[in-house]
Amino acid sequence: MRITVLAGGIGGARFTRGLLHHLRASAGTAATEVTVVGNTGDDIRVFGLQVCPDLDSLMYTLGGGISEERGWGREDETFVVKEELAAYGVQPTWFGLGDRDTATHLVRTQMLAAGYPLSAVTAALCARWEPGVELLPMTDERVETHVVVDGDEPGTHRALHFQEWWIRHRAALPAREFVLVGVDDARPGPGVLEAIRDADVVLLPPSNPVVSIGTILQVPGVREAVASTAAPVVGVSPIVGGAPVRGMADACLAAIGVATTAEAVARHYGARRPVVGEPDSGLLDGWLVHDGADADAVAPLEALGIAARAVPLLMTDLEATAAMAAAALDLASVVRR
Amino acid sequence: MRITVLAGGIGGARFTRGLLHHLRASAGTAATEVTVVGNTGDDIRVFGLQVCPDLDSLMYTLGGGISEERGWGREDETFVVKEELAAYGVQPTWFGLGDRDTATHLVRTQMLAAGYPLSAVTAALCARWEPGVELLPMTDERVETHVVVDGDEPGTHRALHFQEWWIRHRAALPAREFVLVGVDDARPGPGVLEAIRDADVVLLPPSNPVVSIGTILQVPGVREAVASTAAPVVGVSPIVGGAPVRGMADACLAAIGVATTAEAVARHYGARRPVVGEPDSGLLDGWLVHDGADADAVAPLEALGIAARAVPLLMTDLEATAAMAAAALDLASVVRR
Repeated sequence: MRITVLAGGIGGARFTRGLLHHLRASAGTAATEVTVVGNTGDDIRVFGLQVCPDLDSLMYTLGGGISEERGWGREDETFVVKEELAAYGVQPTWFGLGDRDTATHLVRTQMLAAGYPLSAVTAALCARWEPGVELLPMTDERVETHVVVDGDEPGTHRALHFQEWWIRHRAALPAREFVLVGVDDARPGPGVLEAIRDADVVLLPPSNPVVSIGTILQVPGVREAVASTAAPVVGVSPIVGGAPVRGMADACLAAIGVATTAEAVARHYGARRPVVGEPDSGLLDGWLVHDGADADAVAPLEALGIAARAVPLLMTDLEATAAMAAAALDLASVVRR
Repeated sequence: MRITVLAGGIGGARFTRGLLHHLRASAGTAATEVTVVGNTGDDIRVFGLQVCPDLDSLMYTLGGGISEERGWGREDETFVVKEELAAYGVQPTWFGLGDRDTATHLVRTQMLAAGYPLSAVTAALCARWEPGVELLPMTDERVETHVVVDGDEPGTHRALHFQEWWIRHRAALPAREFVLVGVDDARPGPGVLEAIRDADVVLLPPSNPVVSIGTILQVPGVREAVASTAAPVVGVSPIVGGAPVRGMADACLAAIGVATTAEAVARHYGARRPVVGEPDSGLLDGWLVHDGADADAVAPLEALGIAARAVPLLMTDLEATAAMAAAALDLASVVRR
């Protein structure tokens, strides 16, 4: 079986770790191959280093090197390089550059400078981490999510890099728009469209539906590939009881006029048409919402043509996360086209 | 008074620190300006970072950030980045990249990539360290010392970067030649020739006479500037009792056919001609040798026309080093042209 996951950082990484745990525990799925298409819109060039936050969160989480406490970056991390850069008066001081992380960025930056595409660099880094999945950047081209916010004068706007908005401003500046610089000229990374087309199941984990999965879907050809794959497409709500489980997805959803509810996010992704490849199809065959708080979203989503289930969606530990992944696969088997 | 020092790394840095200590303690020399021309032949691009070992040793030593124990790199240094790079299997593993140091290299590499010359980058870094001297790279151009050693087959040779020879092989591979890649096209850095020409005293500290001071002197125009300056030129022997005080200068001297003695090094620099600007002049007006072991070098050097003094030349502490610098300045005042 081939499973393809479109993922952002922490949420996607933890969900995928649960998925792998479930698969390893299931004797019958020993031959399952998992491909993760990672968001690179958060990537940033900082201090001359090319940083790929989501790819690194996926790689470290699945490879056993993540800081469980922070959810991003390396365990046993130190921040000497960051402190010294600040002592030189170098900006930005808000970026959390860890020392262990710095080595990853140095290797990546050097390989990119030598002419290797990001997909090859990611494969080289994964040779160390052995994440147990094939990790594919959504694109080898440079695509950067910028956030349009209000300017100082009424009626004016300014744009800043997503990372500055997210980390420095804690997403507190109201976002008017997300602009994906470079996306129009970007092509899906090697293997991305094939992984979606040839999958037996496509999963949308509880990643940010706007700036993580939404970004991947904007790479030309990706949305169409998801909408037209013969595989069932099942998503997991990142919203539980009207709030993001983690992160600040509400601030992102508000910018695109989507309510912060499990149902609204499913409606935003949209229901797939009954016939594969039908134009203007939405993306979802199935959708998991949190049991209890969001159970009342099941009926209206079913009415839309999205098979919905209410199951526990809190990734409190590996077993709970594996059960979520199992529920997603189970739903996929039900909606199998 | 203007003092110009041509310096390598550790030896030159410690001597200059002693010089500054002496000047600060001398009420009459409050207005003295010290310019240090630093060797950049040891510079190396490693992990995508531009590393300037001698400039950094000077900057850290004079700015109070040096590791006294190692003599190079930062105090309270950690090596997390280096360990992580090794975990990725990245070469070279023999290069001692510290975490604090990494920040310096990141700032330097970024500024160079932005188009700033090394001299401007060095000035920017020194704005933090306030070394109390004007620190000038010998050149803004890339000049790299490579070492020619025997190849695997008899009669063949191969070349390696100085740092690899020095650090990885501990200078144990017999050096057949030192080749300064790029030196023919290099120009002295901004202010270098002026600092030598307009100095009241030029000092050659106990730096490596081959791969530190010798390298600076090979930048087109520098040797001629030293030979023809109106200022007295006084050197301090890096050889005491037939051995380098620190480092592996003997391995370097052997490669150019110079004996490892205080007298031979002075002869190698050569005596300046009595008339300033006379062609084929040597470089030295004065030379300090170590009192005791090398006192018998004084007479033959004096016979050559080099004013020689035997004084204690072990930089055991700041006071001892300041006394050495004071002796050098005193000798300069005696030989003043």
